Amino acid sequence: MALIVQKYGGTSVGTIDRIRNVANRIKEQRDQGHQVVAVISAMGGVTDRLISTAQEISENPSEREMDVLLSSGEQQSIALLTIALNEIGIKAVSATGRQAGITTSGSHTRGRIESLDPSLIQEYLEDDYTIVVAGFQGTNPKGLIQTLGRGGSDLSAIAVASSIKADLCQILTDVDGVYTADPRVVPKARKLPEISYDELLELASVGTKVMQSRSVEFAKKYGVKFEVRSSLNQNPGTIVTEEHEAMESVVIRGVSIERSQARVTITGIPDTPGMSAKILGSLAEAEVNIDMIVSNIAHDGLARHSFTMHTSDLGRAQKALKPALIELDELGGNSSIETEAGIAKLSCVGIGMRSHTGVASKMFAALGEAGINIGMITTSEIKISVTVEEEQIEDAARVVHTAFDLDT
Amino acid sequence: MALIVQKYGGTSVGTIDRIRNVANRIKEQRDQGHQVVAVISAMGGVTDRLISTAQEISENPSEREMDVLLSSGEQQSIALLTIALNEIGIKAVSATGRQAGITTSGSHTRGRIESLDPSLIQEYLEDDYTIVVAGFQGTNPKGLIQTLGRGGSDLSAIAVASSIKADLCQILTDVDGVYTADPRVVPKARKLPEISYDELLELASVGTKVMQSRSVEFAKKYGVKFEVRSSLNQNPGTIVTEEHEAMESVVIRGVSIERSQARVTITGIPDTPGMSAKILGSLAEAEVNIDMIVSNIAHDGLARHSFTMHTSDLGRAQKALKPALIELDELGGNSSIETEAGIAKLSCVGIGMRSHTGVASKMFAALGEAGINIGMITTSEIKISVTVEEEQIEDAARVVHTAFDLDT
Repeated sequence: MALIVQKYGGTSVGTIDRIRNVANRIKEQRDQGHQVVAVISAMGGVTDRLISTAQEISENPSEREMDVLLSSGEQQSIALLTIALNEIGIKAVSATGRQAGITTSGSHTRGRIESLDPSLIQEYLEDDYTIVVAGFQGTNPKGLIQTLGRGGSDLSAIAVASSIKADLCQILTDVDGVYTADPRVVPKARKLPEISYDELLELASVGTKVMQSRSVEFAKKYGVKFEVRSSLNQNPGTIVTEEHEAMESVVIRGVSIERSQARVTITGIPDTPGMSAKILGSLAEAEVNIDMIVSNIAHDGLARHSFTMHTSDLGRAQKALKPALIELDELGGNSSIETEAGIAKLSCVGIGMRSHTGVASKMFAALGEAGINIGMITTSEIKISVTVEEEQIEDAARVVHTAFDLDT
Repeated sequence: MALIVQKYGGTSVGTIDRIRNVANRIKEQRDQGHQVVAVISAMGGVTDRLISTAQEISENPSEREMDVLLSSGEQQSIALLTIALNEIGIKAVSATGRQAGITTSGSHTRGRIESLDPSLIQEYLEDDYTIVVAGFQGTNPKGLIQTLGRGGSDLSAIAVASSIKADLCQILTDVDGVYTADPRVVPKARKLPEISYDELLELASVGTKVMQSRSVEFAKKYGVKFEVRSSLNQNPGTIVTEEHEAMESVVIRGVSIERSQARVTITGIPDTPGMSAKILGSLAEAEVNIDMIVSNIAHDGLARHSFTMHTSDLGRAQKALKPALIELDELGGNSSIETEAGIAKLSCVGIGMRSHTGVASKMFAALGEAGINIGMITTSEIKISVTVEEEQIEDAARVVHTAFDLDT
């Protein structure tokens, strides 16, 4: 007998029939002798309808009240799923975020989970109830409702699993698991049986949209092993867990790509302290998200900085940099700006990279043999990223995928 | 400056436009320098839709979960009204039943208000916020959501008014106030400027559907003065308050009628202790609600009991009484049953009745002059009720209304 936390998203509980399906999936676990705590989202579409109703009244509704409004969506879905469980003979009760002991902090509509008091859930588990918990919500120490922002229900599930020391936490979603690459780009991509938190974080942050980073970070922090699997079939998914020695035998866990990137290069920067801060500060102020940063000194003794961003930020970046460049020249620079759109980023991720040399050279060789030019390069402990021409990104992903023996 | 509690029902907040209207009504109070705590119901129709969704899943959904489901309706309406208030420049916050400090006891879907902790509301009032409280709901000491059953939002409003010592509690509804009689029956009926709790209770229990009895009882218990008035116009309504001396100068406050009544008479009951209990017990077991009870001894030394009930209960009553009658005969009786449908009840209510003799004779004389026969008669300290033929009930109400100088 295991204690399992299962998280179902809004699509999985989007209609009465789907709610019944989820009830039946939970019953299968019960029939196998397991205890289940389900964490669910609002019925698909409900949240959007509530938002548009609020916006009919006000263009800029109070975030405090949006939390009160939106959290009602999960309150409805937990009651309905519990009723559906009762209807097929499963002893079940619902719990709102507050009843599940989820205490939040931070701003309304973007709450963080501060602490968990699982006493009510545990009391019900002792009486062998199945418990249906409202995801995406909690209350702050003052008793006010806060929602957790995008991906909040995943976060709730991980937090509940941690607080009750669940044997397994399953994130049931519309993908089968985590793949070595996006199968639409790399047809030979394989589903991974297992991946470490850090690898998933690096893959997620470069565009593999399986889960929000902060849910993975939370799971890592509290050591919650979880499985990403499909709510539509019974196939095993991908286990996300702490890294262990066997994982290091695989050099590269996966390959991911990010399209629609642009590069900005500033040349002729005086080589004195504080210059980078000035440049990056002006971009941050203009809310330009920059990604890769490369910097070096040219033969004239002046520095050059290159960074990448999403193409849609390029105009804002150019505007924001103008006053900064004037300042640089006043400080002895001779600055100019170059921009290049139409590039894309390719990343290889794997904790095995730490103990294997030659990963970069293997990657670059594969790209070179395919006639693909490399632009910028950045590396972290478990990731190597390069930019290439956007039109070559799919080819680039496939040749690198093959080079590291990831193909099925 | 006064502190006012205003209660708005589901019809008053049934659409976005009506929510805006309510916001404007609250703003009028604010503009006059008053502080407002609004207690509101779910948007009209929402509760019914949630019930039918639950019934799609289960014919007999858990009452615990129905409370979780239905309370989401008020959670949505309080957020939307608060957003509407903010939009017209009123500093406002919402509060769920729990946040308003409403602690409940009793069964799910029929909770009772056990205690109130107004500290959060008071904190917001000190900061000059307008507060929008979810009616119809609270949480029990375990933290589970309970709804308060029919008329629960009135109860919430009275309770909140009591806990914050409001200067006035306004129940805004679709009637203008409390009338001396139903204006559809008695065209000369007048709106009462004032009525005592006890008088309203007696009028309510005989069919004047202004408020649920328990809300009036709660108000009486905690001495909360409230006003019943229309949410559709600005006319003053009826103040419901403790009785005071001036009220006694009016002998009869109002007249009310109840149609579709039936009478059951049992004759030949042995005149020994325990017989009434036997008869009434068998009716209670069959869930027959009986209303008037009249009992006396006939010339043969055997007793006769008469009682009235709604016509729809008559069949169930006859069936339930059969075994009881056999028992009565075994104990020395010679029982038989008579029934009469097609009667109605007329009641006169007024605390002035206590200090004025001749009220009954005046009532009976008026009916006699109009050629209306009286059947059963019952009296309480502030009420006289009689039965008449149902086809004469409207005439009866009018002549009594005139006899006691209630006509406009």
